[in-house]
Amino acid sequence: MIPVTPIAWGSGHTVRILDQTLLPADERYLDVHSAEEMAEAIRSLRVRGAPLIGIAAAMGVALDAAVAAAGGGDALARAHAAGRVLGAARPTAVNLHWALARMLRRAESGASGGSVAAGLRAEADAIAAEDRAMCERIGALGAELLPDGATVCTICNAGALATGGIGTALGPVYVAHAAGRRPRVIVPETRPLLQGSRLTAWELTRAGVPCTVIADGVIASRLRRGDVQCVIVGADRIAANGDVANKIGTYGLALAARAHGVPFYVAAPSSTVDPATPDGSRIPIEERAADEVITWGGHRTGPAEVPVWNPAFDVTPAALVTAIITDRGVYAPAAVAETVHPLVAGGQGA
Amino acid sequence: MIPVTPIAWGSGHTVRILDQTLLPADERYLDVHSAEEMAEAIRSLRVRGAPLIGIAAAMGVALDAAVAAAGGGDALARAHAAGRVLGAARPTAVNLHWALARMLRRAESGASGGSVAAGLRAEADAIAAEDRAMCERIGALGAELLPDGATVCTICNAGALATGGIGTALGPVYVAHAAGRRPRVIVPETRPLLQGSRLTAWELTRAGVPCTVIADGVIASRLRRGDVQCVIVGADRIAANGDVANKIGTYGLALAARAHGVPFYVAAPSSTVDPATPDGSRIPIEERAADEVITWGGHRTGPAEVPVWNPAFDVTPAALVTAIITDRGVYAPAAVAETVHPLVAGGQGA
Repeated sequence: MIPVTPIAWGSGHTVRILDQTLLPADERYLDVHSAEEMAEAIRSLRVRGAPLIGIAAAMGVALDAAVAAAGGGDALARAHAAGRVLGAARPTAVNLHWALARMLRRAESGASGGSVAAGLRAEADAIAAEDRAMCERIGALGAELLPDGATVCTICNAGALATGGIGTALGPVYVAHAAGRRPRVIVPETRPLLQGSRLTAWELTRAGVPCTVIADGVIASRLRRGDVQCVIVGADRIAANGDVANKIGTYGLALAARAHGVPFYVAAPSSTVDPATPDGSRIPIEERAADEVITWGGHRTGPAEVPVWNPAFDVTPAALVTAIITDRGVYAPAAVAETVHPLVAGGQGA
Repeated sequence: MIPVTPIAWGSGHTVRILDQTLLPADERYLDVHSAEEMAEAIRSLRVRGAPLIGIAAAMGVALDAAVAAAGGGDALARAHAAGRVLGAARPTAVNLHWALARMLRRAESGASGGSVAAGLRAEADAIAAEDRAMCERIGALGAELLPDGATVCTICNAGALATGGIGTALGPVYVAHAAGRRPRVIVPETRPLLQGSRLTAWELTRAGVPCTVIADGVIASRLRRGDVQCVIVGADRIAANGDVANKIGTYGLALAARAHGVPFYVAAPSSTVDPATPDGSRIPIEERAADEVITWGGHRTGPAEVPVWNPAFDVTPAALVTAIITDRGVYAPAAVAETVHPLVAGGQGA
């Protein structure tokens, strides 16, 4: 039922990733050989989506530890070094730091019963398996919120390509589709990198879910038509007060949803909630290169040297969020901190 | 002071246009030889912008009449035929129909004192000269609304490239700039055809006005920062109740402006007001080809056959408009019908 598997162990000491920068034209898989290569793949968005970044980082740490162990090196030291490289790859998604903290905790633990490297591989597998299960639970909970034949608007890609399972925002859609409840999806293309048209439309089409692509500027007009039952988006970090960082454009989508009385849901694993961030103003927002906006296929689409502001994310205030769907339940935004994973809160790991 | 002249008479029976589809890479001018060629240039957006479309249509009618007269043909019949071809080129901008109605009225008038062809050329010149003057008046009126050092957000291109003068939305910016009042402009790129980054950033840069390009999804985040003093956009048609049709994305921009208490101004010549359209729901909205959204430089950016909804315009309700700046004054939206050009209202021509 998962339409595509964007990451998996390869042969030997490799991780096989789908290079998402080449979609939809090419479905090409790459072998990653080190945490350094994985960090590059994350920075360059070959691997993207907050949950998938967490899984990729975990696998990157396990990979380097395995290489070190195979060469008679210090797997623990190598895991820590890998964690530093991967932790610097992207600043906004908290799942990355959550997964790395969990991996290094496992590396430090003497209770793994085996070698450090074997323990880290098992932990990375656990993170991936839990993410897959989290997606299923988010999908089941979210599908209950959809009427039959619902039209859902999303943004960017929070589907199978962004996770280890059926996705977060798209999870409810896939569950409803599998149940024969005929959902449809409105897909804003999501400039500058077109994760909507390139990725979301691609995986929905592959799964047989009808969808319609629109330019981002069409969102407000589309919601005004009155036949979109809800918005569901993913999240890169959710602050303790329920403010949500997600792909740039989400905040404008939330304003349009509010203006037209359309419920605005955020779907994310509990690892996306960061109790250490009190509100959205404290979430670091990654700013990316001007070229993402002002060039296309090597051609400039604006005058030379014109300044560009290219934040990758924005913050939607909790007041605009109808509910947050996590693997642990459907929460009012102000109550979302209750869903927090104990490891992040400093308690005992699951 | 006008940064660029996008249309002018050429030698012989030609009109010289700047091919705006090639900007910013190439500044290439084309010779148009007939109303048919002008209609193609309008449909393909080589000539675009509601006021400029009106001028181009007028020049196209005059061109065909001159060719007919030079060949001993019936200039009046040819003018009517040209009007039909040009009137069908694009449905939303009312200036096109306003200019054609004015040209055909002139053609029918026996009072022109000369030949039909000479009268039509004079009328097209009058329309262009009046548009230039209207831009100056809009610029002067609008500049009074800008504080010194203002940061203004616009969308699409309603500048010199869209008019016979300094532009409508950009008119106040150019007037303030010439007065040394240091305005700055936030330029959403305006998908799908990037008239913001390709055209507005190009002409502002040429004129020495500082600007920053953003993806359309960044608008709401940018307005939240609190240092944008106002939004000024153009219009393709303004209904009698003050509802405004303009480039797709304008409505979302208006919602974001309202959410952040930023004044939202519409700047347009009085010929843009259509008293025959009672409200925005009656404005025909052009839907353009899917390829504008889903391909780039010949490459598909989404899966084959995925449906696309590509409306070229949206409607901003009068309730979100702070004021409408026309050449005749600054109006509350509900009072904008007072600015109507007498010819459109069926009265005597100016």
